[in-house]
Amino acid sequence: MRNTTSLLLLLLVLGSMTVLQHCKPKGAQAAISGDAATAVYVQPGTHDEFYDIVSGGFNGQVSVYGIPSGRLIRIIPVFSAFPENGYGFSEETKPMLNTSHGFVPWDDLHHISLSVTNGEHDGRWAFANGNNTPRIARINLSTFRTEEILEIPNSAGNHSSPYLTQNTEYVIAGTRFSVPILGNTDVPISTYKENFKGTVSFISVDKSTGHMNIAFQILTPGVNFDLSRAGKAKSHGWFFFSCYNSEKANTLLEVNASAKDKDFIMAVNWKKAEEYVSAGKGKKIPAQYVSNTLDERTHMATSTMRNEVLVLDPKECPDMLYFIPCPKSPHGCDVDPTGEYIVASGKLAATIPVFSFDKIQKAIADKNFDGDYDGIPVLKYDAVLHGEVEKPGLGPLHTEFDDKGNAYTSMFVSSEIVKWDVKSLKVLDRVPTYYSIGHLSVAGGPTVKPYGKYMIAYNKITKDRYLPTGPELPQSAQLYDISGDKMKLLLDFPTVGEPHYAEAILASKVAPNSIKIFKIEDNAHPYATKGEAQARVERQGNKVHVYMTAIRSHLAPDNIEGIKMGDSVYFHVTNLEQDWDVPHGFAIKNANNAEILIMPGETQTLTFKPDRTGIFPFYCTDFCSALHQEMQGYMRVSPAGSNVALKFGIGKTAQDTTKTAGAGNQGTETGQNSAAGGPSRPRR
Amino acid sequence: MRNTTSLLLLLLVLGSMTVLQHCKPKGAQAAISGDAATAVYVQPGTHDEFYDIVSGGFNGQVSVYGIPSGRLIRIIPVFSAFPENGYGFSEETKPMLNTSHGFVPWDDLHHISLSVTNGEHDGRWAFANGNNTPRIARINLSTFRTEEILEIPNSAGNHSSPYLTQNTEYVIAGTRFSVPILGNTDVPISTYKENFKGTVSFISVDKSTGHMNIAFQILTPGVNFDLSRAGKAKSHGWFFFSCYNSEKANTLLEVNASAKDKDFIMAVNWKKAEEYVSAGKGKKIPAQYVSNTLDERTHMATSTMRNEVLVLDPKECPDMLYFIPCPKSPHGCDVDPTGEYIVASGKLAATIPVFSFDKIQKAIADKNFDGDYDGIPVLKYDAVLHGEVEKPGLGPLHTEFDDKGNAYTSMFVSSEIVKWDVKSLKVLDRVPTYYSIGHLSVAGGPTVKPYGKYMIAYNKITKDRYLPTGPELPQSAQLYDISGDKMKLLLDFPTVGEPHYAEAILASKVAPNSIKIFKIEDNAHPYATKGEAQARVERQGNKVHVYMTAIRSHLAPDNIEGIKMGDSVYFHVTNLEQDWDVPHGFAIKNANNAEILIMPGETQTLTFKPDRTGIFPFYCTDFCSALHQEMQGYMRVSPAGSNVALKFGIGKTAQDTTKTAGAGNQGTETGQNSAAGGPSRPRR
Repeated sequence: MRNTTSLLLLLLVLGSMTVLQHCKPKGAQAAISGDAATAVYVQPGTHDEFYDIVSGGFNGQVSVYGIPSGRLIRIIPVFSAFPENGYGFSEETKPMLNTSHGFVPWDDLHHISLSVTNGEHDGRWAFANGNNTPRIARINLSTFRTEEILEIPNSAGNHSSPYLTQNTEYVIAGTRFSVPILGNTDVPISTYKENFKGTVSFISVDKSTGHMNIAFQILTPGVNFDLSRAGKAKSHGWFFFSCYNSEKANTLLEVNASAKDKDFIMAVNWKKAEEYVSAGKGKKIPAQYVSNTLDERTHMATSTMRNEVLVLDPKECPDMLYFIPCPKSPHGCDVDPTGEYIVASGKLAATIPVFSFDKIQKAIADKNFDGDYDGIPVLKYDAVLHGEVEKPGLGPLHTEFDDKGNAYTSMFVSSEIVKWDVKSLKVLDRVPTYYSIGHLSVAGGPTVKPYGKYMIAYNKITKDRYLPTGPELPQSAQLYDISGDKMKLLLDFPTVGEPHYAEAILASKVAPNSIKIFKIEDNAHPYATKGEAQARVERQGNKVHVYMTAIRSHLAPDNIEGIKMGDSVYFHVTNLEQDWDVPHGFAIKNANNAEILIMPGETQTLTFKPDRTGIFPFYCTDFCSALHQEMQGYMRVSPAGSNVALKFGIGKTAQDTTKTAGAGNQGTETGQNSAAGGPSRPRR
Repeated sequence: MRNTTSLLLLLLVLGSMTVLQHCKPKGAQAAISGDAATAVYVQPGTHDEFYDIVSGGFNGQVSVYGIPSGRLIRIIPVFSAFPENGYGFSEETKPMLNTSHGFVPWDDLHHISLSVTNGEHDGRWAFANGNNTPRIARINLSTFRTEEILEIPNSAGNHSSPYLTQNTEYVIAGTRFSVPILGNTDVPISTYKENFKGTVSFISVDKSTGHMNIAFQILTPGVNFDLSRAGKAKSHGWFFFSCYNSEKANTLLEVNASAKDKDFIMAVNWKKAEEYVSAGKGKKIPAQYVSNTLDERTHMATSTMRNEVLVLDPKECPDMLYFIPCPKSPHGCDVDPTGEYIVASGKLAATIPVFSFDKIQKAIADKNFDGDYDGIPVLKYDAVLHGEVEKPGLGPLHTEFDDKGNAYTSMFVSSEIVKWDVKSLKVLDRVPTYYSIGHLSVAGGPTVKPYGKYMIAYNKITKDRYLPTGPELPQSAQLYDISGDKMKLLLDFPTVGEPHYAEAILASKVAPNSIKIFKIEDNAHPYATKGEAQARVERQGNKVHVYMTAIRSHLAPDNIEGIKMGDSVYFHVTNLEQDWDVPHGFAIKNANNAEILIMPGETQTLTFKPDRTGIFPFYCTDFCSALHQEMQGYMRVSPAGSNVALKFGIGKTAQDTTKTAGAGNQGTETGQNSAAGGPSRPRR
């Protein structure tokens, strides 16, 4: 059904409403209760109650805020190179950003998902999706580091991701952009309807290590998948995806993909899919994609190319996929804590449909279909509908749940949050947002046992909420107290990047497992230097390996000579500290590189290729002691043909090592370094 | 005078004290007054009173916080590539990170300095120094963008920078690391004392445009310059630098550069230097260094190589430089608001010496010298000393001033701030810091008229102050109320990177000048597309230029065919919006690049080099409207020898333009785009 005129009118209304949002609404301040200041104040010396793990959107990072204070306590580099600590620049971390397309230093990190056991947060991992070059990352919540990145083949725009099944059996990926996948992909764009396909990928997660592996992909019609959620409790075994562009438009989608009154929720019976896989119904398809893993034993990442993927074709796998009609261009697709209710937020719709899992099962059993879409059964809307939330507001985007049977839906266009009763569908409360909310997040909201207490709005328009900073502004979040009947605004806090989604987790589930240092004795890096007496420089052809140690307040060796033009010099720096919060940084004057930031017990490698002869200072970049400023050294670079011998040392003079090159190296002169308190040893 | 044993003892004491700081001191919470929560709470809908412009240290960025809330409202990329908005990745911004060593994507941004007129903040610019590859950056405070980066030749480690004279006549740079500068630089490191030299650079700042130019450099002995400040008011015309490593050690500096009981403050009479320059005493020395400037008319940066610099040799310029003895390895070198008192913070000293500008002038007039250092007169300590602050604490680092004649000195080792009277030198108050404070910042503290009211501690050790985030923690700042007799701790707030210094400026001096959009009619980018009817694709050999427009909610063109393997495709995206806070982002699947974030009225260029054939989606990455998710398109890449014609379009079908290639291009099909509200025109 096409209704272009009314759509155009709606668009104009939506557009003008969005623009109007920059006017400060009346009552913005009246909404603040007197004790809001106290409620968000975390007294110095005490900690926030929740970690808020926040997707960074177009910054490719995950950020960590404390709640209720709204303070940014960590930025974790995931898909984007991060000059600050050398992520994507050091030899150890470069493989993390490798893809089948080569090194890709950025992505659009859309959503995060925290690992669950029996549907509850277990505090082990955060998953994140790369939307642009389809990838999924896994962050270890004991180190707050990205530990794994898996590329997703046969995909374009991995948006409806990285949501998890209730025991983290699978992390999900799905195509936002359908593209030609199999066979010849060099086809006219105008052949979209014939040639463009979607996929959803089920990626298994190893219970003990977290390692990811694509278990299977399912071929789908060429729609755009937007968001998704796993069934849970009674609906465990199912996965639900919102789909837009069921029109299969390939140009001017704002009009052409908004033509139909209903798009779909796609329901996937993944237990059934597992049966098909076990029965050998999947086809192994050639596909190049990489698996990148960081090993904290060596503190090094490796990138491995994989060559095939198992694909299920729904034509050969009946009863695996169903479409549920859903008004109109749905964004959010959320499952309530009981697993019974699936809430779809049609961003161009005037109602919020709530589907019943029991009714879906009955309609399937009864074959209560309304035809099919590309051969996949379409369930009858009325047969599977629990009911519609009437007149909730304009532009519903995303819904989460509290611990009392309530749902909270964000309304982009009318810039508000609406609280409603999941069973009765009755609207209970509404609060304005400043401005134009995208996703929201209730603490524990996507789990089977929400914490409730706090809700955070992630707003898309900031305008006048903070002091102006030129044309480019931060995004803005708002914290609400939802412990009572009425939602109460507590705090505005700005965020980095563009958070599309976040989960708040009780600090007590994460903090006790946090690692403070890496044990030096466990360091299995092949170029680790575990004591200052082993600090040395070795030449292998035109590669020079510097085995360097860092401990307050010197680098060893700190005088290096005999580097030649044309050399590649690898500074493998081991931080010998074994105390919490004593990283050392390392940088070399003029390097075409970033710094490296080395945690206690870790080894990181910075590569230097001299562009001229002369003296190049290097130094510690992270203020580490009263004598940090003295933690420096010099490297001498000579012409390619020079006869300057390879020498290194500290404390007195550099030692000529060329006499023993290839047969072992001199230890360093460390005569005076007992002052450092480091694990120095007698010279060999 | 060498006293190695006592030094080693001191080092051990300092080391163990530093380690002990992670124990939570008693009374940490008792120090908080009951109304602190209210004092730092900035009610939603209202603004902070101060911008806090904060150096990012090893992240190469400047960050902007609101005070008193401690909220991070902006990260400004300066010396580091920033995938988030394409800084260092887009064609327009890449030149900003060019140096004489090629593209350098990182630096250690140590300090900032806000422009002043008559010694008071004028709210125009923030300057920042790159310590590693010596550079100075200028940020425009109306756009909060980096507008200029100037490389500093004959330098290594530009640490004592970017401090300003009282009318922003000059911004200063100085060598932290002395190196061989003139003639043959490939010399043994052990010849430090003969061959290594320092320089300080005076960089003129154009009064109207802010453009920087190295006016002159002064050759100095091979010490390490640490920090510096200009004289002001009565001492205007002078500049003061702290120096350590007057021992000229080249290895194990923690011991060998800590041997002497006194190092120096270097006083530079820059008015006298100007006279020497006018008199032709400077020598033009060949030196390769770049000047990078961003032109907001075209929104493009250009990088220009410069080839010489004017150098003054103090041997030929008497009465220009003086050394003032100063205990011991001084860090801070700060001038009080009256210009009379110069406070040096010897980080290994047990007192804080305060020098008198009047006494310095008298000692010079009287030639009251204590010999010379490398030919430069050393003033007699007692002759120039106003007095010493006795037993202030351990490890004094840095001093700022309030509006009532008080000084505040940070104590790294004893982890506290000490308030004292500048004239009487009497200690008035002390508060603990958590932990190990580096610099501090009083609002307006370095100007002739401090605002007082707030003081912020930038601490070097964080440990347990926030929820733990693995081995890597944020840095931590603490906000104090200094309006009364006693300093009151109000708030702990974490910071990004490692702030080494910050200035807080009254919001009313900056906010009114903040630019909200770039006017599209002023856009002089050579590849700007000022209306959707001009959107087009042009091939020039194997370079393809896409003249693309972005406006809610479509990109034009959104279907592109005829791209071939081997092409370089330049997506010049113009954001046609003219409303505040409506940036569009742009990304292409699998690009070995970042995104670009395009402000209203701006043009930015993302380069794409296909690595395979097929269909590549592109899309807007910054949620911009209810139909943002529909703001996407497709590019088809065909083999190098393919006969697929160059086509582009939007709304219906792509138009074949090969027939008119070289003779003008077709406009796009924009039949349905009136829905967008964009400045579409009838098809030509």
